[in-house]
Amino acid sequence: MYGAGDVRVEDVPDAHLVEPTDALIRVTRAGICGSDLWPYKSMEPTDSGRRMGHEFIGIVEAVGSEVRTIKTDDLVVSPFLWSDGTCVLCQGGLQSACLHGGRYGFDDVDGGQGEAVRVPQADGTLVVLPVGENDALMPSLLTLSDVMGTGHHAAVAAKVARGTSVAVVGDGAVGLCGVIAAKRLGAEQIILLGNNPERVPLGQEFGATHVVSERGEEAVERVRELTGGLGAHSVLECVGVEQAVVTALEIARPGGAIGRVGIPEHDTTPTSIAFWKNASMAGGPAPVRAYIDELLPDVLEGRIEPGRVFDRTGTLDEVPDGYRAMNDRDVLKFQITF
Amino acid sequence: MYGAGDVRVEDVPDAHLVEPTDALIRVTRAGICGSDLWPYKSMEPTDSGRRMGHEFIGIVEAVGSEVRTIKTDDLVVSPFLWSDGTCVLCQGGLQSACLHGGRYGFDDVDGGQGEAVRVPQADGTLVVLPVGENDALMPSLLTLSDVMGTGHHAAVAAKVARGTSVAVVGDGAVGLCGVIAAKRLGAEQIILLGNNPERVPLGQEFGATHVVSERGEEAVERVRELTGGLGAHSVLECVGVEQAVVTALEIARPGGAIGRVGIPEHDTTPTSIAFWKNASMAGGPAPVRAYIDELLPDVLEGRIEPGRVFDRTGTLDEVPDGYRAMNDRDVLKFQITF
Repeated sequence: MYGAGDVRVEDVPDAHLVEPTDALIRVTRAGICGSDLWPYKSMEPTDSGRRMGHEFIGIVEAVGSEVRTIKTDDLVVSPFLWSDGTCVLCQGGLQSACLHGGRYGFDDVDGGQGEAVRVPQADGTLVVLPVGENDALMPSLLTLSDVMGTGHHAAVAAKVARGTSVAVVGDGAVGLCGVIAAKRLGAEQIILLGNNPERVPLGQEFGATHVVSERGEEAVERVRELTGGLGAHSVLECVGVEQAVVTALEIARPGGAIGRVGIPEHDTTPTSIAFWKNASMAGGPAPVRAYIDELLPDVLEGRIEPGRVFDRTGTLDEVPDGYRAMNDRDVLKFQITF
Repeated sequence: MYGAGDVRVEDVPDAHLVEPTDALIRVTRAGICGSDLWPYKSMEPTDSGRRMGHEFIGIVEAVGSEVRTIKTDDLVVSPFLWSDGTCVLCQGGLQSACLHGGRYGFDDVDGGQGEAVRVPQADGTLVVLPVGENDALMPSLLTLSDVMGTGHHAAVAAKVARGTSVAVVGDGAVGLCGVIAAKRLGAEQIILLGNNPERVPLGQEFGATHVVSERGEEAVERVRELTGGLGAHSVLECVGVEQAVVTALEIARPGGAIGRVGIPEHDTTPTSIAFWKNASMAGGPAPVRAYIDELLPDVLEGRIEPGRVFDRTGTLDEVPDGYRAMNDRDVLKFQITF
């Protein structure tokens, strides 16, 4: 990406092993993330460009001398961040804050929207998938790299529990995966706040029991009506703009919990709404690596189908148009095949 | 209180039973709360005045016909809010958001800084104390009405657990009770951020293992040094001004938790600090009623001595000077005897 709206497919030097803890991956599937749209909207033009992409599955082509658990020809999925798996934060389940981890596309690490990627800390980062590279489950497995784990993180941060009422703010791919996560964790009532004519029905198929298409104060009133006047036990904030966060705060019941995973576009959050009703707020970049172990069996056994959020698939050449289409909301989420 | 800085002791109509669920209490001890200083600093002048006080212990003089668990001559402590104990929020342990509860000093309910109080919802609100009205434990028992329960709420909201590192922002009465709560919940390291020459030593006696007297960025650096570079697992924000909240956010470790109980003076809270490190923030008006059952045995058996936060005691006539002294920070917390 060379600036806002300027995505190009180019030849770059071949990815190769650098550290003994690296793995070299030939990418077989990748995704465009909602967070990729932030620079697509706002990035200052640059001559050097920036490597993009952090959601991918691929075949291991080579591993460094210290890699123990990953071997050549394994099919692996990578979380959207790499992590060593051994530091105190990884051991505590917060691999997204690994003391020795980092981001794809920065610091001489390749981006995931490309043919090959050097994955640092391969043992800590990668998870082997027990299927073939063209398995029908591939779209759902690809969501384990980010969007499904992120929706799950919102649900965990919002303390979704069996029998509770849950509101999901946002009908993007993360919000829809949040619906899947809420249902999976046993929520009794799942209220999806959104009004996209294609996404809302998918959210209902995923488990939303109610849809609120209003916005702002009207949406707040509707959710209160649906929750006996109290608000939802758990609110998943899956947008990241101030209006959505305020709505999320307003529709939480006293003592409720807001899980937020939308990358915040806003600098500040109102203080008093949460304070006076003792609502908690948690969330951030999802420790996807921690969640793959938990979510993978449900994908493999077909109990959840998060891959349905991909509504368009194309090759690397089509990626620039994929960005455009997602940014224009013509496409919910774009899958790249190789 | 007739306006900022204008506290008067006056004769008012006798408190009396109104509802069949009321109890009439002759107050034997009361306190001035840090939150009483907000109107003392900022209240617009008014001709009618406002009844003050919400921390008190007293003898039951009469009960309404529907009161079942409280009887005449009982010595009782009241939480700073009254609550029915039966609504869905009370049953969930959040009596401070009771659907049928309310505040002392408002809506024809007396204030606690007076000789007698009508307590609504007596069965849900009051807790009988198994001691005499002049027992030596009285100051500590009085803290169960608010400040000790509030410090405990900060610790609970900050997820203090055995063996963790805890930072307490603020050396006021709430912060000092937060230190007691953190120690009681098994924290291994308790870092008190404060610099008052009388309060900090009391915090150390209560269990603070380290003191950070710096402010702002220097304080953040010091806490990081003391916590292996990571920050504290739990941070208790016991002030309520923006600088303190920012410090609290900065000193929490990735995945850490901030419990905030300082009544927010600021309208907004920075969004990004907590988001990028997945720190949670929770807290608000403490459900003190829920905590009395848990804390009372520790007070009765002398394991905690939160009453030491009262460093001046006086009669009702001395209350105006008590406000002044607390506001000038000459006094940490003022106890009223009758």
